[in-house]
Amino acid sequence: MRADVHRFSIADPSDVSALKAAIDGGIIDASSIVAVIGKTHGNGLVNDYTRGYLTLCLSILIGERSGRTAQAVREQVPFVFSGGVEGVLSPHYTVFTVTADEVPATNRKALAIGVGFTAPMRPADIGRQAQIDAIASAVAQAATRAAIEDVHFVQVKGPAFTLADIIEDQRAGRSPATDNPGKLMSFGRAACALGVAKALGEIPADLAVEAAVLKDFSLYSSVASMSAGVEVDVNEVIVIGMSSKWSGTLAVEHTTMIDALDVGSIHAMVQRLGFPAAPQIADAGRVRAVFIKCEAQRDGMVRGRPHTMLNDGDINEQRHIRGAVGAIAASILNDTGLFVSGGAEHQGPDGGGMIAVIAEKVDV
Amino acid sequence: MRADVHRFSIADPSDVSALKAAIDGGIIDASSIVAVIGKTHGNGLVNDYTRGYLTLCLSILIGERSGRTAQAVREQVPFVFSGGVEGVLSPHYTVFTVTADEVPATNRKALAIGVGFTAPMRPADIGRQAQIDAIASAVAQAATRAAIEDVHFVQVKGPAFTLADIIEDQRAGRSPATDNPGKLMSFGRAACALGVAKALGEIPADLAVEAAVLKDFSLYSSVASMSAGVEVDVNEVIVIGMSSKWSGTLAVEHTTMIDALDVGSIHAMVQRLGFPAAPQIADAGRVRAVFIKCEAQRDGMVRGRPHTMLNDGDINEQRHIRGAVGAIAASILNDTGLFVSGGAEHQGPDGGGMIAVIAEKVDV
Amino acid sequence: MRADVHRFSIADPSDVSALKAAIDGGIIDASSIVAVIGKTHGNGLVNDYTRGYLTLCLSILIGERSGRTAQAVREQVPFVFSGGVEGVLSPHYTVFTVTADEVPATNRKALAIGVGFTAPMRPADIGRQAQIDAIASAVAQAATRAAIEDVHFVQVKGPAFTLADIIEDQRAGRSPATDNPGKLMSFGRAACALGVAKALGEIPADLAVEAAVLKDFSLYSSVASMSAGVEVDVNEVIVIGMSSKWSGTLAVEHTTMIDALDVGSIHAMVQRLGFPAAPQIADAGRVRAVFIKCEAQRDGMVRGRPHTMLNDGDINEQRHIRGAVGAIAASILNDTGLFVSGGAEHQGPDGGGMIAVIAEKVDV
Amino acid sequence: MRADVHRFSIADPSDVSALKAAIDGGIIDASSIVAVIGKTHGNGLVNDYTRGYLTLCLSILIGERSGRTAQAVREQVPFVFSGGVEGVLSPHYTVFTVTADEVPATNRKALAIGVGFTAPMRPADIGRQAQIDAIASAVAQAATRAAIEDVHFVQVKGPAFTLADIIEDQRAGRSPATDNPGKLMSFGRAACALGVAKALGEIPADLAVEAAVLKDFSLYSSVASMSAGVEVDVNEVIVIGMSSKWSGTLAVEHTTMIDALDVGSIHAMVQRLGFPAAPQIADAGRVRAVFIKCEAQRDGMVRGRPHTMLNDGDINEQRHIRGAVGAIAASILNDTGLFVSGGAEHQGPDGGGMIAVIAEKVDV
Repeated sequence: MRADVHRFSIADPSDVSALKAAIDGGIIDASSIVAVIGKTHGNGLVNDYTRGYLTLCLSILIGERSGRTAQAVREQVPFVFSGGVEGVLSPHYTVFTVTADEVPATNRKALAIGVGFTAPMRPADIGRQAQIDAIASAVAQAATRAAIEDVHFVQVKGPAFTLADIIEDQRAGRSPATDNPGKLMSFGRAACALGVAKALGEIPADLAVEAAVLKDFSLYSSVASMSAGVEVDVNEVIVIGMSSKWSGTLAVEHTTMIDALDVGSIHAMVQRLGFPAAPQIADAGRVRAVFIKCEAQRDGMVRGRPHTMLNDGDINEQRHIRGAVGAIAASILNDTGLFVSGGAEHQGPDGGGMIAVIAEKVDV
Repeated sequence: MRADVHRFSIADPSDVSALKAAIDGGIIDASSIVAVIGKTHGNGLVNDYTRGYLTLCLSILIGERSGRTAQAVREQVPFVFSGGVEGVLSPHYTVFTVTADEVPATNRKALAIGVGFTAPMRPADIGRQAQIDAIASAVAQAATRAAIEDVHFVQVKGPAFTLADIIEDQRAGRSPATDNPGKLMSFGRAACALGVAKALGEIPADLAVEAAVLKDFSLYSSVASMSAGVEVDVNEVIVIGMSSKWSGTLAVEHTTMIDALDVGSIHAMVQRLGFPAAPQIADAGRVRAVFIKCEAQRDGMVRGRPHTMLNDGDINEQRHIRGAVGAIAASILNDTGLFVSGGAEHQGPDGGGMIAVIAEKVDV
Repeated sequence: MRADVHRFSIADPSDVSALKAAIDGGIIDASSIVAVIGKTHGNGLVNDYTRGYLTLCLSILIGERSGRTAQAVREQVPFVFSGGVEGVLSPHYTVFTVTADEVPATNRKALAIGVGFTAPMRPADIGRQAQIDAIASAVAQAATRAAIEDVHFVQVKGPAFTLADIIEDQRAGRSPATDNPGKLMSFGRAACALGVAKALGEIPADLAVEAAVLKDFSLYSSVASMSAGVEVDVNEVIVIGMSSKWSGTLAVEHTTMIDALDVGSIHAMVQRLGFPAAPQIADAGRVRAVFIKCEAQRDGMVRGRPHTMLNDGDINEQRHIRGAVGAIAASILNDTGLFVSGGAEHQGPDGGGMIAVIAEKVDV
Repeated sequence: MRADVHRFSIADPSDVSALKAAIDGGIIDASSIVAVIGKTHGNGLVNDYTRGYLTLCLSILIGERSGRTAQAVREQVPFVFSGGVEGVLSPHYTVFTVTADEVPATNRKALAIGVGFTAPMRPADIGRQAQIDAIASAVAQAATRAAIEDVHFVQVKGPAFTLADIIEDQRAGRSPATDNPGKLMSFGRAACALGVAKALGEIPADLAVEAAVLKDFSLYSSVASMSAGVEVDVNEVIVIGMSSKWSGTLAVEHTTMIDALDVGSIHAMVQRLGFPAAPQIADAGRVRAVFIKCEAQRDGMVRGRPHTMLNDGDINEQRHIRGAVGAIAASILNDTGLFVSGGAEHQGPDGGGMIAVIAEKVDV
């Protein structure tokens, strides 16, 4: 098998013209698309409908070009969009394709990708052990099926719910972890991250971790990136790593940022991908996709000085931190088409985050 | 003469406890304070009252400790506050003092500072030739009086006006450049920057540049940093540079950023101040103050990809770009207590900006 | 002919379930739909994509149920959505149908509706005489074709453009009225309103009014409601009034609000529709649709006290005024499913607005 | 005793010119001021510093004019400011004075006012039984001392805390009810309201109600109005009612709004104050002060249609509801200088609120 990665800018959340051109130009086979991850124009919070809008437009296009209904495409292909392109960030989507290819004679590893879905969930499932276990199972299966030896990045898109959904669940006798829609998104991201950590052995597999959700931040996954949105009711799982069973010219690396200013980790990772040491990479064209999770440090400080992100009633903390960490990564990678997602509960250390980069191998 | 620079974090815009402790502890002589520049908690737009709040609290304190009324202090000491500490940025203020000192025997230059004020202005003066000329004159005088040989940074705080002020002026038969309060702030910053450029010979002294205001962005100053706020009705000018007539352990450097991701210029400037080449400086304690101007690129692009800052109805473009460029500078300087101000009209090239750093000399 | 009006709440901008049920239940014939007007969840500003999202979902549904492509539906049916459901306002859409019916023997007037479209426009056309004249012509034709004797409400949806569009037009040598996307929306609404006023004889037909756009607010239409959005490139026109040539149980009335607190005009209009005098109507079920235009008073005052809507950097003035005037109308009409649109340039007197109500006739 | 009420508009949060003129003109004796309540320009959320700014400026003025320090004034006079003047609302403050006067021979009641303070509180006290009991005690004492027979309005301003305060308390081994600053404001308002209800017999005096805080919304006070702000560390209590022991020309009335559109209750209350029945009162000059509490209905509905206030990531729910209910009250009272405060937890029924009006008696 061979995985390829294509990234397209969008003018607005209905703009699928670039993928259409790539399909119609023979560059991408619509039926080879296994996942799409991107950043859309909305606020990235509960009332962000740009994620669903782009999902609809892409699923219609891919369906038309691959002889399926849009609905069938959505059930088969995870679409993970995070809203919020603060500061220099640029709205875009990244299309992952998998095509048949000969296994390389050498044991050299190449980019590999696996996907999976859980059953649908209701508000009362979010942040609970059931969600943790469902994610862990889906991640493990996806990684195994794709023969991924080194997992570098796991993206999960879980369901979010509006107040109306939450109230409906409460009336049906189910008790959600919170009745605040934004807070419930946080619970969901946390549970998904712990599910990933469980699947990958970052925390003991037999630990019942529901009690740690949003409480014990010493438990986390170093490769997990969780999103939540009202446009899905199942959890969609994308596992990306390296495999000696796959071919191709791409590689993936990741690192943990210990805090928002941890550029040393980013530089080290970039060098593992073969980029020369430099304040800013010169050969930005080699970068195929970048995935970042980040969050505002919970003690209200960054490197000894106070920040104001958690006290701000005008701009949500996630919008603040995405704009900041996204800009820092963009300045190193010489690229603004980054997937930067806030709400990094249990996804890296408190106040830190995760960054994964897919790039062309330097010596292929 | 000798200039010193002290930077203090603030918990809220009324928090002057750190300066109080420094004065009462004998570290700062209240009567030696010649200027204060800082970042406060507000949105940095027309309805940001945190700038005036901190000005009031500081002028009361300095007045009490130096035997003056708060009003007298405000007339003698420029207080330049920019609101908006987006992302990792930290609210703080920097106090500049000037004390008598022997002129060094050597011709080695040291940090020098000069201040000045223009006459009061009304809405209809803003953005006009009268403002440009008044600024040019005040800057030239301040630099000359302070015997500054190399000007690295000129901060101007000019007046802003609410809609009520603008309407009053219109009714009095004066015609402001615009009746939009936020836009008028933009006109004011532009005129001040062109005034600085005129004073420093960056544009011909005999050019009548009113027609270039917000139109011809090829005219700009590479050391100007303009703010506007409703809390002043005069233009306050602070000129910072190096002089062989001054003593002390501090130095200042500056550079022009060609765009928001221009980290190469920042790294080069940092090295001119004696910091070793590194993705992030290790010895952050040497940095005494940092001043940055930035703005969203007017063509809607950053390095070939679209940004959304100019189309956003929820978060003002200045808040976006401050959060982004501030984070990039913080990641290099290992410091979040930066003065980052948006609205860089004619202050550096379109979409770029200016950064100046005051640091302890490396070999003193 | 007979016009009917159906209003549906939406859970999110893709929720077309209620219309689907009405079509599938035989209540509405999809091919009889001539226009849709509604309020969606977004901010109602340039970067509001919820309008386009709902338009897409509705056009797909109506297309499927009437044997047309979604694209064909969009070219034949005006979809006018205004974003922003501030305060108590409720997201919804109102579907207008026209079916064949016998002309009533009596001369009693009934609700009548006509629609029209102009040619596509580019940024440089917006706010210009060409747009004014195109609107005037489209309105006059629509009213004539529908035999409307008393026009009570004219809704126009004109194109808005992002910064990228504006820059592209500038590069092609065309000069838009402004390069600020939000401001250009304002120019467009103004020109459309003056076009309506010209068509209806509210201003002299031979007046070249381009010079009055956003300048002379004494020129206005008392029945115009203008919206602008990036999702259209033509101007869509909906003319609603009473005609003795139409049958049916519905009537429409309108009034001019002289300022945001002008409830007397609303009460008088409600009574013209046959509702008894009361602080709040009891029989809210008779109300079929409500359309309101409003704006923040330009002198910064309401009834002698200052408002802050025009100085606010956190919440756009349109969001402020929609929330306020929408709540006032809701409190009288006992109904929150109101179409309330800001940006009332030349649509009623400065600081005031327009309200039109479609209700069941009281004595049918 | 005799209570008087003076209301002043403000241009910005430092504008105390109107009170200064009233004092210097002999209209108000600065030493007779017992309380100040007002609306300032900020967002009314945690990071709103306009409340503290106006408090500082007023306390300096009143101190200068009454021979006290500003600090002494702040310890003796409750200053209760709510930020957020959404929509048509107008920033202002209302000054309450008490002067010696002969008790009227008749038993006719007049406006009476009592004030009180609790001990300082830390984050861990907020929302707890200790706060409830302290408020109950302070309210009871203030009402008794002022001989108030009918309590119509109790305003409490309790402390709010930033994240830094909360973390400091946690580190000291105290456990706040939540570590979210905005949510802790909600706990504080809730506990204060239940304290008022306890003092006034609206809930049983011996009920330990801590468990009901933000849980059992059937418990509430019908006259309580709670605010919280970072600028105080004690709870300040203002009790307003009618007393036969007081003289003067003013009266106060209040009512409970069952939901945001409950204008019937407002009209009935206005008529109890002697205003003729009308959609909008004509004699707005008789209104001296208006106090409103309101909140977004927790089930996400208003009169059967969905609202979006609780799902909005751009505008806080309190800003939405203040703008809506404030506009409705303004439209009836013909006055925009209203104190409208969100966060009505346990202050009236869920989704409803409280309104109290001080007006000149009609027949004096």
